[in-house]
Amino acid sequence: MAYQKGEGKSVVIALGGNALGNTPQEQLKLVENTASHIIDMVADGINVVVSHGNGPQVGMISNAFAEASAHDSSIPEMPFPECGAMSQGYIGYQLSQALLGELKKRSILRSTACVITQTVVYPEDPAFQHPTKPVGPFLSEEEAKKRAEETGMTFAEDAGRGWRMMVASPQPQRIVELDAIKDLMDDGYIVIAAGGGGVPVIERDDSYHGIPAVIDKDRTSAKLAADFKADMLVILTAVEKVAINFNTPEQMDIDVMSVADARRYIEEGQFAPGSMLPKVQACIEYLTAYPQGKALITSLEHAAEGLAGKTGTIITAS
Amino acid sequence: MAYQKGEGKSVVIALGGNALGNTPQEQLKLVENTASHIIDMVADGINVVVSHGNGPQVGMISNAFAEASAHDSSIPEMPFPECGAMSQGYIGYQLSQALLGELKKRSILRSTACVITQTVVYPEDPAFQHPTKPVGPFLSEEEAKKRAEETGMTFAEDAGRGWRMMVASPQPQRIVELDAIKDLMDDGYIVIAAGGGGVPVIERDDSYHGIPAVIDKDRTSAKLAADFKADMLVILTAVEKVAINFNTPEQMDIDVMSVADARRYIEEGQFAPGSMLPKVQACIEYLTAYPQGKALITSLEHAAEGLAGKTGTIITAS
Repeated sequence: MAYQKGEGKSVVIALGGNALGNTPQEQLKLVENTASHIIDMVADGINVVVSHGNGPQVGMISNAFAEASAHDSSIPEMPFPECGAMSQGYIGYQLSQALLGELKKRSILRSTACVITQTVVYPEDPAFQHPTKPVGPFLSEEEAKKRAEETGMTFAEDAGRGWRMMVASPQPQRIVELDAIKDLMDDGYIVIAAGGGGVPVIERDDSYHGIPAVIDKDRTSAKLAADFKADMLVILTAVEKVAINFNTPEQMDIDVMSVADARRYIEEGQFAPGSMLPKVQACIEYLTAYPQGKALITSLEHAAEGLAGKTGTIITAS
Repeated sequence: MAYQKGEGKSVVIALGGNALGNTPQEQLKLVENTASHIIDMVADGINVVVSHGNGPQVGMISNAFAEASAHDSSIPEMPFPECGAMSQGYIGYQLSQALLGELKKRSILRSTACVITQTVVYPEDPAFQHPTKPVGPFLSEEEAKKRAEETGMTFAEDAGRGWRMMVASPQPQRIVELDAIKDLMDDGYIVIAAGGGGVPVIERDDSYHGIPAVIDKDRTSAKLAADFKADMLVILTAVEKVAINFNTPEQMDIDVMSVADARRYIEEGQFAPGSMLPKVQACIEYLTAYPQGKALITSLEHAAEGLAGKTGTIITAS
């Protein structure tokens, strides 16, 4: 073992989309800020596994190969799972570099490791019956129908801008690299893992096979945190605290809520689908599987303070 | 620690280009064969770190982004180091999947970890004075000159097919993720690392910065093997043994040679530049830094036999 782990909690941090960027240059800039906030926590003794989304990045890579292979027959089409693996390498490299720079600046003798991650999903997951997540390039109706016939995939009209491949967003069942992630954290590394929720794979004939799908990164982070019994799951987003009656005169920020509270608010329709709702649901999944844990939802800027109990929304099992 | 390491030697294996493929489908097929040979060694108790080249793959990614961004302004140009990181994710994902499948098939309770790897090079490396490695897309002379002005990079005519960016191939000085790779191997993982020789970075202002360059994967593997005192460096190539008087009636396969023998043969011009020469040189670098080690050059098909001392060319310090 080359490093000593921190004396504080073990924490899985799911970065929001605002922690990364849309171009390589923009992202390289943004991850510096992200890294500074993460290393604030490391400086407090926290042991960190960082996960992140990859929506814009995997879309960009998938689009680049679709566009390039259409113009240049020497460039192959790239399957969506492989694009996901590329996005993990791309984001992980930039994030790791930024984290290492911040560690050096503060003379903290720790290091980073970015692990390419696969996440097992079940082929019988009901999400596969209704693929709803648009990925890849916009096509004409004619192209889309041709591709649908060739590949057996679903294509649908998206946002009035054309036709796109639709993939499912199944539940993460198991993180293939869980042990490596846990061992690296225990060996004192700041681990970057489960990027984009992990490359979705199914198990068949005793082996893993990538499938075109997307996995919610907050759900994978919840699964990861529960499976290795992380003390906390931290979901970073654009706001400092979760609110009820959001954007009304009665808006109220929540400091602490139980899973039962959270479920009641969900039933009341307090959290926006595709926004705060899946984050709260991911926290509930983690706390249901590991009731000893605590979940925190806050912004990147308030993450270190939140971990110190000074802000953010804490969710507990009971 | 989730796994037990093998009782045999620790070995860094540098895969040759024939272990991978030119399209994602071809590569997925080829890595199955590669994985089967690697797991033969693991079954013999060997602890393995696998490195690999990325020439065709990083070229494909770089070309895809150059082509796509030229046609579609929503797709950014992708810097070469980021393309390298993507290629590590792409190859590492497929290779890891194949290795896991082979482990399962044989009921070996081990796992894999692919670590995105950066390799430090010196900005004052003399190679930067003479960039000789063509990368990225073929351009017209006019485009090339425009890009050269914009970027300060070198462009030159390549193989009569057009103009390409030329990058340096500097010496690897330090592998940033060395400790993580070593710790993972000690924790029982089959580690995939230093893909494409690692993403080349320079150290400046206390932090790492990617630069467009390529690092010889055999040299990085030699550095990796020396730095963590691996018992053996195994360089896999197309032939079973290194030969002198190659392709003449006097061709003689070599079973064992010392570094002094190897140096003499190099002076005689026995090994082809860009082919066997850099592999033998990488072995010399490893053995000079770690004379207790042994280097083996053989083919993928003969690797397990070679490690058992039955074939291949063994190189020793004295």
